[in-house]
Amino acid sequence: MMKSIVSSKYLACLVGSIILNLLFIINIYVGGQWKLSWSLGAAIEAETVAAIYCSGHGRAYLDGLVVVGNKLVCDCNTCFTGPDCSQFIPHCTANADGGDPLFLEPFWMQHLASSALVVAGWHQMSYTYGGKSFFSKELAKVVRKVHASVGNAVTQNRFIIFGAGSTQVLSAAVFALSPENNSSPAKVVTSVPYYPVDKQQTQYFSSQKFKYEGDAYRWNNRSDCSSTNMIEIVTSPNNPDGQLKKAIFHGPNVKTIYDHAYYWPHFTPIPAPSDEDVMVFTLSKLTGHAGTRLGWAVIKDETVFNRMMIHMRMNSMGVSKDAQLRAFKLLNAVLEEGTGIFDFAYQTMKSRWERLVQTVSLSNRFSLQENNPQYCTFYNKVRQLSPAYAWLKCEREEDKDCYAVLEAANIIGRQGNLFGAEDGYVRLSLVRTQDDFDILIERLHKLITEGDGDKTM
Amino acid sequence: MMKSIVSSKYLACLVGSIILNLLFIINIYVGGQWKLSWSLGAAIEAETVAAIYCSGHGRAYLDGLVVVGNKLVCDCNTCFTGPDCSQFIPHCTANADGGDPLFLEPFWMQHLASSALVVAGWHQMSYTYGGKSFFSKELAKVVRKVHASVGNAVTQNRFIIFGAGSTQVLSAAVFALSPENNSSPAKVVTSVPYYPVDKQQTQYFSSQKFKYEGDAYRWNNRSDCSSTNMIEIVTSPNNPDGQLKKAIFHGPNVKTIYDHAYYWPHFTPIPAPSDEDVMVFTLSKLTGHAGTRLGWAVIKDETVFNRMMIHMRMNSMGVSKDAQLRAFKLLNAVLEEGTGIFDFAYQTMKSRWERLVQTVSLSNRFSLQENNPQYCTFYNKVRQLSPAYAWLKCEREEDKDCYAVLEAANIIGRQGNLFGAEDGYVRLSLVRTQDDFDILIERLHKLITEGDGDKTM
Repeated sequence: MMKSIVSSKYLACLVGSIILNLLFIINIYVGGQWKLSWSLGAAIEAETVAAIYCSGHGRAYLDGLVVVGNKLVCDCNTCFTGPDCSQFIPHCTANADGGDPLFLEPFWMQHLASSALVVAGWHQMSYTYGGKSFFSKELAKVVRKVHASVGNAVTQNRFIIFGAGSTQVLSAAVFALSPENNSSPAKVVTSVPYYPVDKQQTQYFSSQKFKYEGDAYRWNNRSDCSSTNMIEIVTSPNNPDGQLKKAIFHGPNVKTIYDHAYYWPHFTPIPAPSDEDVMVFTLSKLTGHAGTRLGWAVIKDETVFNRMMIHMRMNSMGVSKDAQLRAFKLLNAVLEEGTGIFDFAYQTMKSRWERLVQTVSLSNRFSLQENNPQYCTFYNKVRQLSPAYAWLKCEREEDKDCYAVLEAANIIGRQGNLFGAEDGYVRLSLVRTQDDFDILIERLHKLITEGDGDKTM
Repeated sequence: MMKSIVSSKYLACLVGSIILNLLFIINIYVGGQWKLSWSLGAAIEAETVAAIYCSGHGRAYLDGLVVVGNKLVCDCNTCFTGPDCSQFIPHCTANADGGDPLFLEPFWMQHLASSALVVAGWHQMSYTYGGKSFFSKELAKVVRKVHASVGNAVTQNRFIIFGAGSTQVLSAAVFALSPENNSSPAKVVTSVPYYPVDKQQTQYFSSQKFKYEGDAYRWNNRSDCSSTNMIEIVTSPNNPDGQLKKAIFHGPNVKTIYDHAYYWPHFTPIPAPSDEDVMVFTLSKLTGHAGTRLGWAVIKDETVFNRMMIHMRMNSMGVSKDAQLRAFKLLNAVLEEGTGIFDFAYQTMKSRWERLVQTVSLSNRFSLQENNPQYCTFYNKVRQLSPAYAWLKCEREEDKDCYAVLEAANIIGRQGNLFGAEDGYVRLSLVRTQDDFDILIERLHKLITEGDGDKTM
């Protein structure tokens, strides 16, 4: 009987062990890990790096800085330091300068599987796609789908061209819209406050094809502009103040470039799909991937499209296919997530604006740009703007240099004069990391409440 | 006794099964597959796409064209077609036009694990690295290591800047070396035969800072050039003829840009590490990844470096971090493989040249560029050039338009006049796929042997 019991126990253990083996086999085979070969090492490396602990105030990158012992270091947020970014630097400066869109980083950290990308060593080595074009047809398809799903641009029967960020696309458009011969260079104008790159870039090229002529409003009253070739760059929503804008100039000699970098539900109501001749967008302000350098233009006229293609060829022989693949992956993930990224982005910006308005309205020392609600076809409701930047004005007579006022309070913004405005204005970036925003609010609160006690409300 | 035997058998099976359990656990845990989470789906997708059968005459890409039923199609080599690229198109045209460096594709297909890359959705979203630079420090380190290991450029105490291919780096250099004020624009010269992009790009910008003035040899005899600001672009090895070149101009008003795109053992002996003021290289002709758009310059002077940085900012706000990551991965793989890629590339080019020379020398209808052996410090031996292009000359009086002669024989090359040379010359690309090269040789052989029977040797 003893032997029967032992025998039964062996049998039971054996059956259990066999079932476990079958589970392993099924898990490996069906889970697909059975199939992984050449990508396994790279996948392990990426997941290992991603798991490096940076205390929630930073992250480690595959190509991040390496220190002694071949150790990857954490890339820390502003005001944080130490090997795991856990040490706060108490009197550090709040960075509200650049438009680095890291407010979207948490979204991607919550959507790891849909946004992960595996690239084979032999992937897309050629200059072109299918021996013909510098630009991915499949990426263009996805871009059209995204615009259709958001309803912010008409893309049917339009051409799409890519560039290294809207930066390169904008210069391609300016070159393409300039007259063919250099005898009557186009006058490039933008209305104050304007995006500084429009001016700086146009002046930098020093081209005989075009010349930056400054504030569009000042040209509007001149009698000689009806016969002059004009190129107006309209940034809408505007950078720095987030307002939706329309062109000032119209006429047969006028070409308009609409820079719609911020024309997403993250930052603005979408009253209607934009339907302009040249509309420029960028991945930077849609998914937050500024470092990828992927912008595009939606263009009505084939001649303009062809001329922009020439620019892309002459300038850089196309656009990185790695950037195009990354954008392809990310935009497909955006579509997969339904309204996910827009809800995340809009809620984040909305909540940041609520805190900012609350803080600024503690006194009348500062004011913010106007924020008039409009109907949004994306959210089917009336909503306010939630701009990427605060266009802060120093209201006091003695606060002439608003940048200096903030700098003294340990806040770095961007000077108003860079945007063609007065020194009484400063642009504050609200799209950076949560750490950046929290520190900004803390510093602003301190400045407003302690700066001048008897003037707080 | 029967029960003892059964009991022993159960025990034996149990032990065997438990050993198998342990092996699975060790394999999964140590093999690391246990750890894969967010990257698994992307890895399976990439490996599945990579495994799509394209009969050795094509390949499928993650972002390749998709047809009905969401099916990825094979991207076929020239002259092949069909869903799996197995159908040869009998009278197709041999493509010897562009410098698409797909001759290196097989190397990467044999080195899948070391060159695979996994990119997290949140990877490098910011415009900059560490909040400061557009350019990856770690990539610059790897570039220096590669130059040190090949011995083709001095990089110690030099600055390194990146761009979207050598195309963008070249224009950055021209802008940076031009005088600060526009009153005396620099004259940009190149010696015939020259790389057409040098001329086309310089003319395209139509800048007031510089002007393309043509053939360097013609300017060399003029008495007014000692006081003129000159920028000479020296392509060495030269495109189209593969010859190692030196600058023609010297002097305080002369700036020289060395385009060393082809200065690798693939194409030329390496007599010594180049030590020039501005040296331009590109990933395209080193690893074959033309589509990545990643070039760099090694620069002596910090002012020139800073001015090139301004260009990269103004033009495209830096370079795609996806391109920089890809280059980082690939260059580390190059270093890992020792002399692997250079041996592969050199052997491939050497063997292609042997076949080409054998074919062309069947008659005296055509001739090739001179090919004088030199000592190579990389291979420690005297060796010939193995240039990326054949600079073919039509020797017959009546073959004035060499491009047309070849076109009639179903070969597309690139017209000599694009390089500032006569129509009696055509450039034939030897760096394309093996299919491209085989078809080129076949068509050439036919032209030479059947084209004019009594003149073959």
